[in-house]
Amino acid sequence: MRALISVSDKSGVENFAKELVSLGYEIISTGGTYNKLKEAGIAVIEANEVTKFPECFEGRVKTLNPYIHGGILHRRDKQSHLDQAKELGVEGIDLVCVNLYPFKATIEKTDDFEEIIENIDIGGPAMVRSAAKNHDSVIIVTDVVDYDLVLNNLKNDTNTAEFRRNMMIKAYEHTAAYDSMIANYMNKRFNNGMGDKQFITGVKVFDTRYGENPHQKGALYEFDNHLSNKFITLKGEASFNNMGDISGAAKIASAFGDENAVCIVKHGNPCGFAIKDTLLESYESALRCDPISAFGGVVAVNGIVDLPLAVKMNEIFLEVVFAADFTPEAEEELNKKKRIKLFKQGTTKLEMANDDINFKIVDGGFVFQDADKVEDDEVANSELKSTREASAQEKKDMEIAYKVASLTKSNCVVYVKDSAMVAVGMGMTSRVDAAKAALRKAEDLGIDVTGAALASEAFFPFRDSIDAAQEAGVKCVIEPGGSIRDEEIIEAANEFGMALYFSNKRHFLH
Amino acid sequence: MRALISVSDKSGVENFAKELVSLGYEIISTGGTYNKLKEAGIAVIEANEVTKFPECFEGRVKTLNPYIHGGILHRRDKQSHLDQAKELGVEGIDLVCVNLYPFKATIEKTDDFEEIIENIDIGGPAMVRSAAKNHDSVIIVTDVVDYDLVLNNLKNDTNTAEFRRNMMIKAYEHTAAYDSMIANYMNKRFNNGMGDKQFITGVKVFDTRYGENPHQKGALYEFDNHLSNKFITLKGEASFNNMGDISGAAKIASAFGDENAVCIVKHGNPCGFAIKDTLLESYESALRCDPISAFGGVVAVNGIVDLPLAVKMNEIFLEVVFAADFTPEAEEELNKKKRIKLFKQGTTKLEMANDDINFKIVDGGFVFQDADKVEDDEVANSELKSTREASAQEKKDMEIAYKVASLTKSNCVVYVKDSAMVAVGMGMTSRVDAAKAALRKAEDLGIDVTGAALASEAFFPFRDSIDAAQEAGVKCVIEPGGSIRDEEIIEAANEFGMALYFSNKRHFLH
Repeated sequence: MRALISVSDKSGVENFAKELVSLGYEIISTGGTYNKLKEAGIAVIEANEVTKFPECFEGRVKTLNPYIHGGILHRRDKQSHLDQAKELGVEGIDLVCVNLYPFKATIEKTDDFEEIIENIDIGGPAMVRSAAKNHDSVIIVTDVVDYDLVLNNLKNDTNTAEFRRNMMIKAYEHTAAYDSMIANYMNKRFNNGMGDKQFITGVKVFDTRYGENPHQKGALYEFDNHLSNKFITLKGEASFNNMGDISGAAKIASAFGDENAVCIVKHGNPCGFAIKDTLLESYESALRCDPISAFGGVVAVNGIVDLPLAVKMNEIFLEVVFAADFTPEAEEELNKKKRIKLFKQGTTKLEMANDDINFKIVDGGFVFQDADKVEDDEVANSELKSTREASAQEKKDMEIAYKVASLTKSNCVVYVKDSAMVAVGMGMTSRVDAAKAALRKAEDLGIDVTGAALASEAFFPFRDSIDAAQEAGVKCVIEPGGSIRDEEIIEAANEFGMALYFSNKRHFLH
Repeated sequence: MRALISVSDKSGVENFAKELVSLGYEIISTGGTYNKLKEAGIAVIEANEVTKFPECFEGRVKTLNPYIHGGILHRRDKQSHLDQAKELGVEGIDLVCVNLYPFKATIEKTDDFEEIIENIDIGGPAMVRSAAKNHDSVIIVTDVVDYDLVLNNLKNDTNTAEFRRNMMIKAYEHTAAYDSMIANYMNKRFNNGMGDKQFITGVKVFDTRYGENPHQKGALYEFDNHLSNKFITLKGEASFNNMGDISGAAKIASAFGDENAVCIVKHGNPCGFAIKDTLLESYESALRCDPISAFGGVVAVNGIVDLPLAVKMNEIFLEVVFAADFTPEAEEELNKKKRIKLFKQGTTKLEMANDDINFKIVDGGFVFQDADKVEDDEVANSELKSTREASAQEKKDMEIAYKVASLTKSNCVVYVKDSAMVAVGMGMTSRVDAAKAALRKAEDLGIDVTGAALASEAFFPFRDSIDAAQEAGVKCVIEPGGSIRDEEIIEAANEFGMALYFSNKRHFLH
């Protein structure tokens, strides 16, 4: 039996090779792996002894050779193949252990195109794909974490067809991810990120119990390792819908730097948000905005949940609390509730992936775009359009309302007072409906909106929303501007003594 | 100069080869391509003359050979490479024309695993990747539609670095898509569609002017060729947001078979829907539900727009009309409006892709699931929970309300009367808020909801929405059921003489 080993990630490779030798394998190797195994005192055959051809063109051609690929690819269940192998002097290769030089590491460390091109592996993927194709007879190992599994199966006579098939799937996942990354990189570099083909690749973090609904299967996938590193389950099991809500809530809670922000989300939209001196005060204020929706909601906390906050949270049923962290006392307190789910990042403040890309499925395909982002100076630099200027607190409220609105489903309007959201209208087909629904709800709940700042993620098409805001006592407004009726909006603001700002940047979110 | 040609799709290959010969290329080829070129009277070298090794193992190993890959991969800008090539007898290959056997065609025609595995191309992708890597000197052609472009560039001395780089990108897109398809297929077959890696691959249909907002870049990608086949632009340019709205509107309009359904969408949610005897009547009824939101809306028509409908549509500003088709007179009429955009499928009724998969981006990754679908018998088979049974028209209205609700953002409630939506609440953090907002709006617009059917895409957690429905005169209700307070809902329905049905299936959509 022969095993070909040629790896970029060399961790654990000596031991793996040694074990293979003791199981009766001859080892074939190339380049750096060959040297490493040789130094470790392992009997190893250099690939060019097999290939009967020298390694050439500075290593560009080493294993692209019929003695290697014939050794991997010939069928052991066909006598004609076995006869031909014998006749041609092709010896079987029964295990191929290859992992590819991480293209990602190269593009992260250099912009030099020649170096990047040189680091595209050709021989490696060819061997991986050959061995995967012939998994009926060959074990393909592409991941160092599988060494023990492989050895155990060989030792315990459990090198089954199913095992080799699983390794085959992993192998094609490896080559698919590799070339997807190359294609996406090239398209980003040369085609503005919008190439003729777009590859969205995810690595599974976990299966969800089901999808958006119980009759759908679902799973969470990550782009890099952000979620497997920063999504730690303390209690319960995150559902498909939880993941969407947690993402939405955490984006809002983390949008204000290190501030003690708390956001409550339900069905993807915020129903509570505040930034106060302490997280406890923030949570209390956030809850006040819409305690009905908050029931069964998802709370994101930009900081560490302590005991007093946990006690307060336990007063109602929350489905999920996602926080930078929890103190042991807080965790113990929250654990008292049966149905609550607790997840943390293990950080002091929420740290988001903030991916550059964004996409959405449509019938037959998807729309793809670079991600939206509110710039740090966007509100500060917005244009004063009214006679009256906003006060310092109004400006702070405007900034909060504007950022929350940019992360709430369109059409939306957000009303913020004293750094807490007091009303929100979202996801509606008409902006004035969202404005009115929000204010009616605040009225029903006995929330005083007087003096609040109002933000809209897109321009107000008519002055009706401003008129409704005036009735509710709103004192300042920020919106992108850009309507053909902007002058009417400005006139309305001045009529009511409101401060009005245009950011000149729309933030639709659907 | 030498060109290696080995193609699965053989259309146009003879002419391409002939032209290359006349440009001074020697042609190397294998298998079927070799025979085809030979028969066409083209001078062609069989690959094994180059490889000095026989084609073996029933064609499994043909070109995995240092004379082929060395010929492709050695650098022409390095004297040491050129010297080594000479010394080893490796002759340069300057153009590689390879397209891969469509794995998709295989899996569509057979389930036989051995046949599927045999059809995984190993030599082809290796040559494609080699040639792409050395695009500094080598032209890689992976698509028959590029033959003319390649020939023109060779003839006109415009075989530039940029041209070869574009071909390189296309080549890695080709291999990435190929292995992504293999990995996804294997995961679907063996891992329930939720493998360790998930690949979402799209082919660009068009760039959109911008993304969801003007400061974002955007493009539309398709999975198969549904959109490039069935999305025909008659007037205007579909924006990123239009594509989302068109998808949403068309899904709803096409959800009732061949019925004359019309749906109006704004910001991803329906603000009008009806099924009447004619499309004109359907549009008129749909418009009545919320004429304010419909302004600037996206209309999907399950059929062919004729002149009377077009005239009616022209009475207000619609941003988009998407239809199976338009009569010439209707198209002429709608063309009178400057800002309207017109798209059609070129069919008689809307035909949707109805993809099996669904996904949504979250911070750091995405959630992936199989798509939701309302089964044809879902409403018919729903359980009567009240004393009173629904009438035939009520049942029809319930079915419409239920299907529309399944395609409206959660939390949502849909009220349908005489096969037309009369009120809708959507995308809100609380179900009763959605219920109330919808009814308030209907009241504001003077719409009589009496006798309407009410559907909710998920259970009513409290009887408050039923109480509100009663006040508005709703006479029957369909919902999944499953709340711990289901008995209260049933009690309320009986109290009000409503017909109440439970479908036992939730349809959240976020």
